Amino acid sequence: MSLARFSINQMTVKQLSMPELVEACRELGVPGVGLWREPVQSYGVEATAKLVRDAGLAVTTLCRGGFFTAIDPDERARALDDNRAAIDEAATLGTDTLVLVSGGLPAGSKDLHGARERIADALAELGPYAAERGVRLAIEPLHPMYASDRCVVSTLAQALDLAERFPADQVGVTVDTYHIWWDDTAPAQIARAGASGRIHTFQLADWTTPLPEGVLNGRGQIGDGSIDMREWRSHVEAAGYDGPIEVELFNDALWARDGREVLAETVERFLEHAG
Amino acid sequence: MSLARFSINQMTVKQLSMPELVEACRELGVPGVGLWREPVQSYGVEATAKLVRDAGLAVTTLCRGGFFTAIDPDERARALDDNRAAIDEAATLGTDTLVLVSGGLPAGSKDLHGARERIADALAELGPYAAERGVRLAIEPLHPMYASDRCVVSTLAQALDLAERFPADQVGVTVDTYHIWWDDTAPAQIARAGASGRIHTFQLADWTTPLPEGVLNGRGQIGDGSIDMREWRSHVEAAGYDGPIEVELFNDALWARDGREVLAETVERFLEHAG
Repeated sequence: MSLARFSINQMTVKQLSMPELVEACRELGVPGVGLWREPVQSYGVEATAKLVRDAGLAVTTLCRGGFFTAIDPDERARALDDNRAAIDEAATLGTDTLVLVSGGLPAGSKDLHGARERIADALAELGPYAAERGVRLAIEPLHPMYASDRCVVSTLAQALDLAERFPADQVGVTVDTYHIWWDDTAPAQIARAGASGRIHTFQLADWTTPLPEGVLNGRGQIGDGSIDMREWRSHVEAAGYDGPIEVELFNDALWARDGREVLAETVERFLEHAG
Repeated sequence: MSLARFSINQMTVKQLSMPELVEACRELGVPGVGLWREPVQSYGVEATAKLVRDAGLAVTTLCRGGFFTAIDPDERARALDDNRAAIDEAATLGTDTLVLVSGGLPAGSKDLHGARERIADALAELGPYAAERGVRLAIEPLHPMYASDRCVVSTLAQALDLAERFPADQVGVTVDTYHIWWDDTAPAQIARAGASGRIHTFQLADWTTPLPEGVLNGRGQIGDGSIDMREWRSHVEAAGYDGPIEVELFNDALWARDGREVLAETVERFLEHAG
């Protein structure tokens, strides 16, 4: 058991400033971080890149691009511009993976298929731009409870149906236990993703209930919920994935605590349940 | 457009007493009701059967049996006894369909596969008992957001994998738009279910956000959300289903209103969006 493949997603301990996060990682021997655009922009993209590079920290992912489902042409153009900026930021930070939350149904629309096709259109525009900068787009299927308002891509199978229209060095998938744990077809889809080199990142969060209002900030600490982390780790490893394992929690109770303490606890839980 | 196939699930207007419900159905020309065990038991099973029979109302379903996933033998025996009672009640009420909510993970368990196998064990016990009484068990796949605490059967494919181990006059499925609308494989699974005569009931509820805490009582009024009701109706009809179409909403805002007004609104919405 080791921390060699552990990465902490910044959102898990968002109460820490960028320097506090980097310092806490150094103290605890955490080798990688997944970063988010907003705190990176606040601290400065170049300044963040220098900070993590000087600390010897790997940036395992940048979260997030996406939101490709608008119908309005101006809105679509703005989304593409924003995603090109996200790709540039990823390249500057030295990560090869931009996580995509693809977007929900536009107001008044009931057309899931059409929304998924607009995602494909955006990937066709952005894939080559990303690959030229050494960045891969990682479609994240989100739990079906987010299908209307955040992401019409609800399963690994749907994500791969989209990704496989493009080269694997342009578009792959994010495998996040929180979103797929209920799906008995997900292990086969992980094998499918691995076979074409499309598992671009592997993230952990546990499933706990009751879900909070809005269902956004109830991702459970590793070990607190219903998900067998070792089983999912074994699935991605059997599919050939040997990259970072990122813990990404959105949880009001964890955010209310001391960030260093939460990070230390997350390291312990990772070693106990997924190490 | 007609109400000939419309049925109101009692839970939608649970503020109405049994006689009020029956009277409101008569006034509005509603030909069918889906009943729940608790209010039926409160009013009396025989008394309810007589009330609805005298009013010429069809009982389209009884909700609900299930909760088959316990590991403890005593708890399992109690669940089987309770389900035999539910089957008896369905037969007395004159409905051929008992809807099953199959149960979540037992406390501390992370074994979805094992829980699904215990559901199969229970169906093997109950299927013949039900068929002898003219009652079919209708496994309801619940939205994946209920997988840990209410139902480990999250998709129509999983429900059919279970149902097809038994004769169709014993075990079929419930097709409920609320639970499956996000699933692009559901239309093919509806065709699969129809081909073996296993669509035992078809229920409507709309998907609205934000979801409330606990995610139980946010099922939207028809037309208020993201689901194309006519599209799903056309899928079940293409699969050969010509039975009742039941509207089943759990919604705190609807429950706070006058029950007859809500029933009248539901009739209008059904005709507008699914009739």
